[in-house]
Amino acid sequence: KQHLLLMKQLVLKQEQQISSLARQLQQTCCITDGTFIWKITNFNSKLSEAKSSNKGLELKSDSFYAGAYGYKLGVSLFPNGNGTGEGSHLSLYIRVLPGEFDSLLEWPFHLPISFQLLDQCSDPDKQVHLKESFVPNPTWKHFQKPLKDTERAGFGYSRFVSQETLKNGTYIKDDAIFIKIKVDLASFVQP
Amino acid sequence: KQHLLLMKQLVLKQEQQISSLARQLQQTCCITDGTFIWKITNFNSKLSEAKSSNKGLELKSDSFYAGAYGYKLGVSLFPNGNGTGEGSHLSLYIRVLPGEFDSLLEWPFHLPISFQLLDQCSDPDKQVHLKESFVPNPTWKHFQKPLKDTERAGFGYSRFVSQETLKNGTYIKDDAIFIKIKVDLASFVQP
Amino acid sequence: KQHLLLMKQLVLKQEQQISSLARQLQQTCCITDGTFIWKITNFNSKLSEAKSSNKGLELKSDSFYAGAYGYKLGVSLFPNGNGTGEGSHLSLYIRVLPGEFDSLLEWPFHLPISFQLLDQCSDPDKQVHLKESFVPNPTWKHFQKPLKDTERAGFGYSRFVSQETLKNGTYIKDDAIFIKIKVDLASFVQP
Repeated sequence: KQHLLLMKQLVLKQEQQISSLARQLQQTCCITDGTFIWKITNFNSKLSEAKSSNKGLELKSDSFYAGAYGYKLGVSLFPNGNGTGEGSHLSLYIRVLPGEFDSLLEWPFHLPISFQLLDQCSDPDKQVHLKESFVPNPTWKHFQKPLKDTERAGFGYSRFVSQETLKNGTYIKDDAIFIKIKVDLASFVQP
Repeated sequence: KQHLLLMKQLVLKQEQQISSLARQLQQTCCITDGTFIWKITNFNSKLSEAKSSNKGLELKSDSFYAGAYGYKLGVSLFPNGNGTGEGSHLSLYIRVLPGEFDSLLEWPFHLPISFQLLDQCSDPDKQVHLKESFVPNPTWKHFQKPLKDTERAGFGYSRFVSQETLKNGTYIKDDAIFIKIKVDLASFVQP
Repeated sequence: KQHLLLMKQLVLKQEQQISSLARQLQQTCCITDGTFIWKITNFNSKLSEAKSSNKGLELKSDSFYAGAYGYKLGVSLFPNGNGTGEGSHLSLYIRVLPGEFDSLLEWPFHLPISFQLLDQCSDPDKQVHLKESFVPNPTWKHFQKPLKDTERAGFGYSRFVSQETLKNGTYIKDDAIFIKIKVDLASFVQP
């Protein structure tokens, strides 16, 4: 019984340590220079799961900071589509998340963003990456400063790529796909 | 009882994993290009705690490396002041910590350092960041190569900002303040 | 008994959290700009252990990515030597490891690599770092794209430095040595 108590203390201490590590990791490591590559493995089983699900499976990337002490972002992908792309396309969105440094940044978020689905054809000359880009419109609610208890809607493409194109191309390799996000930091003023 | 033993093994293994993660995080992630922003949350309750405490509450930042494989530094802040600033000011200090790569670096530490308390006024044009900077004097003991069992004293400002200015300004927002450290790496020779 | 069950759940949850942290750390933090410094502590006891061991002790560095979303590499060091250097030298090798982004990279790996054993003489003018460098030959099997279940052989120097030179020089200080790897990213095309 004494052993149980000792272990309980250790486990509780570990919970705090894990929490602290996660926070430090978030704040200092998930910093990008604006480029973020999201690798989605086991893609085919996720697509199957999405098709058999009623609710429309949404995959979420790790969050990342665009620039040190910058905006916190996250990417969402619906393997079986969402909205106007449901059942026929793959949908892709980016979302502004509440970040640690939001009080120091300019709002609304205004940096140009591009999405790419990378073509994994082994011949680099034959690769055709699928790309969409946009500049956030300052009036859109998606890009206003995040509030604590409300999650902003993501912005993106419900019909990013048709499932047909996805299946027939070389985007899926070894059951994985790569989504590349580029946030243009040229006009980002670091705090 | 067997269950207890199995779990004990697992918990001990996790302790090693957590330790290893913390070390890797320290060495590879807390690397800055010389700029480090420390966000202090729950500031008002920390200030209250500091005022009611006898000993003078000292808050310590995560440690960080200025430059990859460079100097390891840490920041200390006394919400209710320290020394000549006790009870009337906020005190701010930087400390050279024993780092993994100290044997490869030049001593004493000689890089220019600046402290800023960031003004969080929502109008960027009205922001007045409070700034102090200095170039370490090579004779000061604070900046000699750290010894294993002795912690070097911190160097900084016991009267960094008056509590009056802090209260009346827009430095505290959503109960948080931001301290920005800049270490000038122009003359830093990476190992 | 109920306590035991609750704790079992917590410990299992922590195992997942630790696993996730390790993965995130790997992917986002062990990114270098091509320069990686490996500090080996307790060197003398490791050398003793290597000498008394039959099998030839191999020390392995943390793995790292040369460039964001680039090649994953690891370094091996034999304190008491390996192959033609066994018993008389320190051997040093680099190995291409299966990385998360291999499908997006050019193969075979072709970037110039240099190894350095850093001289820790306190007078910078008297430091004589021991250096070897090479450009991978595209036909070598070491630098082909890694396969999932086979580990590629490391490439390097079985006779990197003689144990004589190591002992008589200032490479070991405070029982630690530093190995510096430089991967030239000039011709690296980021995905």
